[in-house]
Amino acid sequence: MIGAGNLATHLCRALINSGHEIVQIYSRTIESASTLAKEINVPYTTDTKAIKSSDLAIIAVNDDSIQDIEKHIGFPKVHTSGTKPLSTLNGKNIGVFYPLQTFNKNIDVNFKSIPVCVESSNSGLLQTLKNLAVSISDKVVELNSEQRKNLHLAAVISCNFSNMLYRLSEEVCQKEGIPFDILQPLILETAQKIKYTSTSLAQTGPAKRGDFETIEKHLMLLKNDEEKKEIYQLLTASIKKRR
Amino acid sequence: MIGAGNLATHLCRALINSGHEIVQIYSRTIESASTLAKEINVPYTTDTKAIKSSDLAIIAVNDDSIQDIEKHIGFPKVHTSGTKPLSTLNGKNIGVFYPLQTFNKNIDVNFKSIPVCVESSNSGLLQTLKNLAVSISDKVVELNSEQRKNLHLAAVISCNFSNMLYRLSEEVCQKEGIPFDILQPLILETAQKIKYTSTSLAQTGPAKRGDFETIEKHLMLLKNDEEKKEIYQLLTASIKKRR
Repeated sequence: MIGAGNLATHLCRALINSGHEIVQIYSRTIESASTLAKEINVPYTTDTKAIKSSDLAIIAVNDDSIQDIEKHIGFPKVHTSGTKPLSTLNGKNIGVFYPLQTFNKNIDVNFKSIPVCVESSNSGLLQTLKNLAVSISDKVVELNSEQRKNLHLAAVISCNFSNMLYRLSEEVCQKEGIPFDILQPLILETAQKIKYTSTSLAQTGPAKRGDFETIEKHLMLLKNDEEKKEIYQLLTASIKKRR
Repeated sequence: MIGAGNLATHLCRALINSGHEIVQIYSRTIESASTLAKEINVPYTTDTKAIKSSDLAIIAVNDDSIQDIEKHIGFPKVHTSGTKPLSTLNGKNIGVFYPLQTFNKNIDVNFKSIPVCVESSNSGLLQTLKNLAVSISDKVVELNSEQRKNLHLAAVISCNFSNMLYRLSEEVCQKEGIPFDILQPLILETAQKIKYTSTSLAQTGPAKRGDFETIEKHLMLLKNDEEKKEIYQLLTASIKKRR
């Protein structure tokens, strides 16, 4: 395991739980290397020359550090980035192993529910990656670099931006002394609903209904808040366009 | 119960389950009146002159129909609208009973988890509404008309607009042949996370990290899609502003 951050930690736990052997932890910083190594009881190193060969190196480091470290690895290797192409790695035995989730070291994750996207132009390694992914996740998908980049964009739109909308909505509540947690059940229901119905059938609200009176009232409430007004108008137009 | 639509149906079920008596169903259309009346085994009418007096009339009809029907009701009455003020009703024994959720007749709802917002300028009726709300919901909040209008705006921003983002993100996936359901766990995690942490701490992604390289790559992917590009830029700017 190359790296000892959030993703590396969760990956190590999931792999060990599925019966795989972690041969060694490498990390630039002794502190994170030793913390993870102690937790899972395997050797560690901070010296790129001391990286031990194994069946597979999983490079779970920051996007910008992948190329610095990958050149020290002469055996099969994968990176774990959503945005970097396969060609970030050099050699013939290269691939991508990308779990689609945000990780936090201290919050436990049920890895089974996290989709893993795999890629390799080497069919033997691709099969190895699929087997490895299936052993820790219920959802394994083969995506090429272009698809993975678009998936990452889609994740930013549906997750990072949704959270930004939650923040804007919390600001509206705070301004009026409304406890924001009233909205929690509706927010959760909105995210759950698209499991059972299409995102287009799940659409509700004044823009969908063509309720222009309510839209006008909302814009009046936002008349001194250019930022929220602009976002309201833009997303309302997108909903109207797809009615 | 005045009305026999989604909200009226779910309210009747929840009220009966909590031991309340529904005296009569009124609806303009005989079909929906009789369907609901049969389900819960109470009399119904489609004649405004035949509306029976009771402790409380719950007006669960479209916003635009509230005033047409309320003038026929001379006993204590509440409407159930998020956007209409208390003053939509006439008389002294008037109030608002607003459950914050989107309802679908055929999907079962756990009413306990749905927040109910109450309002009345009559202290006796306000207490009645609070008691009624507490009997069917775990979360009861007193909000005035201005607050309720803002809460509705906040719900449109955090829920209707989030769903619109899910749709945009699904479009990105479809264009590239990526199965959209890969994103489901991450979308759900995003909505659940704000139960345990603030919306501002929950923010992740390239805009939050100041990862301009990734932002540029995403804008390149969207270069022929003005609509998505504009939304991407606006929400990215909002996140950057709050870093």
